[in-house]
Amino acid sequence: VTAIRLQPADHAGVRRNNLSLVLRLLHEGPGQSRASVAAETGLNKATVSSLVAELIDRGLVRELGTVDRRRLGRPATVLELDGRGVASLGIELNVDFVTALATDLGGRTLFQRTRAIDAASRPPKRSLATLVSVAKEAHKEVTSRCTTIVGVTLAIPGLVDASGRTVTIAPNLHWHDINVGDRLAEALGGELAVTVDNDANLGALAEYRVGEFAGTPNLVYIAGQTGVGGGLIVGGRLVRGAAGFAGEVGHMHVVDNGSECGCGRRGCWETLVGLRQLLRDAVPDLAAELESHRDKGPEAKVGPVIERATAKDPVALEGLRQNARWLGIGLATLVNIFNPQVVVLGGFFRDIGPWVLPLAEQTMREYAIAPDAGGCRVVCSSLGFSAAALGGAIFAAERVFDDPTFVPAAGG
Amino acid sequence: VTAIRLQPADHAGVRRNNLSLVLRLLHEGPGQSRASVAAETGLNKATVSSLVAELIDRGLVRELGTVDRRRLGRPATVLELDGRGVASLGIELNVDFVTALATDLGGRTLFQRTRAIDAASRPPKRSLATLVSVAKEAHKEVTSRCTTIVGVTLAIPGLVDASGRTVTIAPNLHWHDINVGDRLAEALGGELAVTVDNDANLGALAEYRVGEFAGTPNLVYIAGQTGVGGGLIVGGRLVRGAAGFAGEVGHMHVVDNGSECGCGRRGCWETLVGLRQLLRDAVPDLAAELESHRDKGPEAKVGPVIERATAKDPVALEGLRQNARWLGIGLATLVNIFNPQVVVLGGFFRDIGPWVLPLAEQTMREYAIAPDAGGCRVVCSSLGFSAAALGGAIFAAERVFDDPTFVPAAGG
Repeated sequence: VTAIRLQPADHAGVRRNNLSLVLRLLHEGPGQSRASVAAETGLNKATVSSLVAELIDRGLVRELGTVDRRRLGRPATVLELDGRGVASLGIELNVDFVTALATDLGGRTLFQRTRAIDAASRPPKRSLATLVSVAKEAHKEVTSRCTTIVGVTLAIPGLVDASGRTVTIAPNLHWHDINVGDRLAEALGGELAVTVDNDANLGALAEYRVGEFAGTPNLVYIAGQTGVGGGLIVGGRLVRGAAGFAGEVGHMHVVDNGSECGCGRRGCWETLVGLRQLLRDAVPDLAAELESHRDKGPEAKVGPVIERATAKDPVALEGLRQNARWLGIGLATLVNIFNPQVVVLGGFFRDIGPWVLPLAEQTMREYAIAPDAGGCRVVCSSLGFSAAALGGAIFAAERVFDDPTFVPAAGG
Repeated sequence: VTAIRLQPADHAGVRRNNLSLVLRLLHEGPGQSRASVAAETGLNKATVSSLVAELIDRGLVRELGTVDRRRLGRPATVLELDGRGVASLGIELNVDFVTALATDLGGRTLFQRTRAIDAASRPPKRSLATLVSVAKEAHKEVTSRCTTIVGVTLAIPGLVDASGRTVTIAPNLHWHDINVGDRLAEALGGELAVTVDNDANLGALAEYRVGEFAGTPNLVYIAGQTGVGGGLIVGGRLVRGAAGFAGEVGHMHVVDNGSECGCGRRGCWETLVGLRQLLRDAVPDLAAELESHRDKGPEAKVGPVIERATAKDPVALEGLRQNARWLGIGLATLVNIFNPQVVVLGGFFRDIGPWVLPLAEQTMREYAIAPDAGGCRVVCSSLGFSAAALGGAIFAAERVFDDPTFVPAAGG
């Protein structure tokens, strides 16, 4: 039930809200016309025409030509989200890579680059230098093609405080209380809005908006990087918690006296389903060497596991079975707590999906208390390793959907 | 940002919404007048007067006399939620008791009764017979004093399907697919709206509405009955999940190869922090006998533990320490996932609180990845064993707040 609260709002505020409403409607689906927008919003046609004119003037909407709809009388001009001159930037800094990804408002990729780093064994300033370098490169490339960058979101595998600037703790980066937001904002000239967020939160946002199961109201996203992160969509909203620290599923306690986790504790789920244990179980002769390649990403490190599994190497297959079993047990706990429609696996889980998915799903059903795990499906992400950076770009673009007047008009 | 959607609504719909808006406002806090309602809602004073007149006519609001507010000109008539003629009924059926609790719309208790049952070892029809008997008694008592019962909510320790009528599975009751909603509705004459819901969900709702930490947007409620249930408030909303099965925290997997749970699996948190293990650890000589008292509630069973702990019996104290440690470990997992402001402990945890709270909180902080467990506090419920029944009454009363025209006018 929507309570009709007639809150006092100034004229400009009402118009901003209505511009936002129309822009979101055009973003949600193609084939809208001024008439259909009027019908869906309840706004009168003159108001819609004026709003659309302003959105066109700001480069956010364009006319696509007319279609003849037999039943609806005269031909309607089809409207489309434009925003080719408006970009947002998502950057992910993880243990072994920095990825920058820029899209325009319509979601078209403008720029994407990944560079290897070694955040685990080098001091933070080295990783920050690469971050700044990649960010500047992205910024230069994008501004050469777009007039407006509306914002930047940085994804970090750790806890980010409520200010959205400071990494409180990132176990696998060995970072504590680093204000990476201010650092990045300064490097980009001090004008851009920069927000820092958890990598798996942004991955979940990307899945919820543009993934294969976009719009699924109860969706759990699990990302296997060096650590194991989670992003939780409940009732169509990202769960952030009281201080922004929600979603740390990698540190669920699932076993007493396990091996030591990157966080210093024992018993964390991450120690059983994370990359380190998989390498030790599946390719024990290579594990030490692969782990020493600190500048190689999880995608590269998991390669030998897949090669040997493809060749039906029994040790590799047994290692994958162990991973699948623990994956299923942890997912069952999440299913018991959240009862989601779908669990989406990202990061290196996506690469090992063909081997682990059936057993992980079966184990999840055994350990979940609801019959058939409450109908939950487990699938691999279609977005891959850049999910968090893409989520960052999507999150930064929200500003424009909230307030289209943020983008200057052509004449202004 | 609230999008201004001007949805087509008929006149009666708009008036219902506005009646609901005014009634909720009067429910939220005392001391409102027609003028202050107009100011807070943005509705004009004539409309507010007409809405208030209708609410008074339906017995939902009353005038309390006038107060002289110096600065505000002439004296204002203070309005108050009335609803003394409107009752809702919450009933909890758990392993060893049935509790019925009726309140009027203002939350005043009209009726409360508890009867012992033995749902675990007797067939369901025996428990259902007691349920029906208690419900009829409550119904008779309440209708002798109120004109309208707006609804009944039944709390069950198990999974309730999305229809809100059928218990899919209740491990500690040994119930599978029992349509207890229809059964109860028929027994009460077939006219009343009956909903079935999970006991811990309703306990969480009661805490969120009228508990000591009412209004805390991220609140985890844990109830220790025979099993251990959870109710999760995230962003001010109860987490129900895709099919209504969310919140089964008792079955989080926290240890490999543990003792067998009521659900038939091993490793569930409930096997470590539940009543059975506590009795075995803390009063090993009495455990078997206490467990055989199947018609005694957790409150009675935990009594000897508290007696001996008060007398500083070392075995009892060590048993409570074990319980506290595992309580803290499980709460840390929930803190890692949800980052709540507060965890409220209900059921028998409330009775053992003085012994377990400090160590449970300390352990939670050690195992939680966020510094200081993200600021989470652990407290004992101020609502006690009747929390779920109270939550049921609150949930049933929602119907009237959503649509005050549900209650007939004096003349009608």
